[in-house]
Amino acid sequence: MARAHLTAGSELDNCSARAAGCDFSGYDLDLDWAIALIKKSNATRIGLQAPEGLKRALPALARQIEEQTGSEVIISGDPCFGACDIDMLLSQEVDLMLHLGHAELEEGPKNVIFLEARVDEDLTAIAAKAASFLRAKRVGVATTIQHVHQIDQALQALRNCGIEGLIGPAGGRIRHAGQVLGCSYRSVRSLDVDEYLFIGTGRFHPLGIALATGKRVVTADPLTGNVSEIDTDPLLRRRFAAICLAKEARHFAILVSKKPGQRRMSLAKKLKALGEAHGLQMSLVFLDNIEPDRLVNLGAEAAVSTACPRVALDDAAKYGIAMLTPPEFEILLETREWVRYAFDEIEDGPAL
Amino acid sequence: MARAHLTAGSELDNCSARAAGCDFSGYDLDLDWAIALIKKSNATRIGLQAPEGLKRALPALARQIEEQTGSEVIISGDPCFGACDIDMLLSQEVDLMLHLGHAELEEGPKNVIFLEARVDEDLTAIAAKAASFLRAKRVGVATTIQHVHQIDQALQALRNCGIEGLIGPAGGRIRHAGQVLGCSYRSVRSLDVDEYLFIGTGRFHPLGIALATGKRVVTADPLTGNVSEIDTDPLLRRRFAAICLAKEARHFAILVSKKPGQRRMSLAKKLKALGEAHGLQMSLVFLDNIEPDRLVNLGAEAAVSTACPRVALDDAAKYGIAMLTPPEFEILLETREWVRYAFDEIEDGPAL
Repeated sequence: MARAHLTAGSELDNCSARAAGCDFSGYDLDLDWAIALIKKSNATRIGLQAPEGLKRALPALARQIEEQTGSEVIISGDPCFGACDIDMLLSQEVDLMLHLGHAELEEGPKNVIFLEARVDEDLTAIAAKAASFLRAKRVGVATTIQHVHQIDQALQALRNCGIEGLIGPAGGRIRHAGQVLGCSYRSVRSLDVDEYLFIGTGRFHPLGIALATGKRVVTADPLTGNVSEIDTDPLLRRRFAAICLAKEARHFAILVSKKPGQRRMSLAKKLKALGEAHGLQMSLVFLDNIEPDRLVNLGAEAAVSTACPRVALDDAAKYGIAMLTPPEFEILLETREWVRYAFDEIEDGPAL
Repeated sequence: MARAHLTAGSELDNCSARAAGCDFSGYDLDLDWAIALIKKSNATRIGLQAPEGLKRALPALARQIEEQTGSEVIISGDPCFGACDIDMLLSQEVDLMLHLGHAELEEGPKNVIFLEARVDEDLTAIAAKAASFLRAKRVGVATTIQHVHQIDQALQALRNCGIEGLIGPAGGRIRHAGQVLGCSYRSVRSLDVDEYLFIGTGRFHPLGIALATGKRVVTADPLTGNVSEIDTDPLLRRRFAAICLAKEARHFAILVSKKPGQRRMSLAKKLKALGEAHGLQMSLVFLDNIEPDRLVNLGAEAAVSTACPRVALDDAAKYGIAMLTPPEFEILLETREWVRYAFDEIEDGPAL
């Protein structure tokens, strides 16, 4: 087959088939589009990969594809944390692989089709509610892949309240204007504003915006209707404690992810050299999923994760040892000042 | 560098450097040999991979290699279950990778050096003790990689007791005459004997011999001194119960391992077709480490593992659903009779 390199989202904006999209755990995925593409490509071996939240739908989807196209479907059984986490071995095993839920990053195999997951929740009401929490008349607006196709609704609602909303450009690993990723805030950092509105679920992305920009961030969840201001202080206090704890350690493991979009080997090697120059024992450890049991037998007293920033920032509590981000390791070594604490970004991260 | 393709064990038998081997958790590994090889190869990036039992030694070994050769060492942080489980991505990241503890299988990247782990326990006493448990005057003798270099001691001790010990040949994934693997008993099956003596630790290998040959097996542990006869009945009863439990299931996941020496995709596809021909819903699932949480969101009511046979036979209790081997799935479908129950072997397995 001709190897396809398409993103569902980019074509779907103007695609009438979109209305036929199926509901997967509240997400809208354009399966008719995908099935038409499979038929057109003559692919006979199809791979399916999805994050845990969408995985339950995969067996039925596999059967649907097999029945409608006559192809053979293989499901990726490993965890999937984002478009940074493409199942490379499955993509090599099949003609065409559908990666569900995430927007494409720049890198990646040519036979992987990204079927973005979208939530068709109107953003007008939540943006109007958030407007009363904003102080500036000109704010940066950002959201995640689930809502970015409706960001114009939010901008219009803000305009109706006399607020100009600006969105950051696509570029690098950010596929859509106005989108942020847990590991990349370059789009919002480029905006000349003093305040941000994040629309979406969870606190990780708005915390990232606040730490990456140093500006006030209001976060608004379109599903719950909750609006609040982001306070970075609790996270920073926890991170300060982790750095203090790691100061006791003499043997550090520097973790490098095997996931294609998280693999920062050269950064890890620089950190290893930096630690050794400070008299520390440093082990370079290459692994796929970072789990507590992976670290037990390596005997390291602390670790630095160069993988997804969430490993250290979201999951710190599950590890028996201090888990730092690269900028936090610099703070520990006093090559970076605490007041210059930086959120770890995989792209546009602090030069080391 | 010239890509090396050597096995430590095969050269070490005549290698004076062997006496300089280091003790790793009771195992003898020839590090001087490995370091000399690294120096000779001019490799500058070295990978280290080991099973959990040897992993604690890796950070110190890494430092030793770095200090003595000036090379840079990367440790594999993923679990490692055998020579079937080569860290392919790490082998691609380095010039030379040392895989500790296991004997080489036939397949595998050319830049991986297998540093076999050996236990220098004399086998004379345990074989002499086992002789009194044997009924035949001509028995098959088998052991694992840790002891195979001393199997002649066992054969001599048996001879002294008037018993002829025969060992199966190397071949296929069996590297040494007299060796068995958890997944391969071809070497012992080829022997024309009515009884076997297994020398080694654990009950999985002697159970495998008993089920693969249908003959009486005496197992003798050189570390504890325990000798006993293998009874396959408890395992067979548990497996019968698992097959009965799986009969309630309508949706099966067929698990295919990504590990290079466990990847039986074509077998899995045959099983999927077989299940579908019997009216079952079948999902083909491709994954690295098989863990209970990998199966939760796939919603399958039972699974068939085409990976390492230990997944179903040793670890069944940890899964929330019935986990069968391929021959057990055939029994469930009544394409194989229960009286023809077969131990799942990756090589020489039952033709499907």
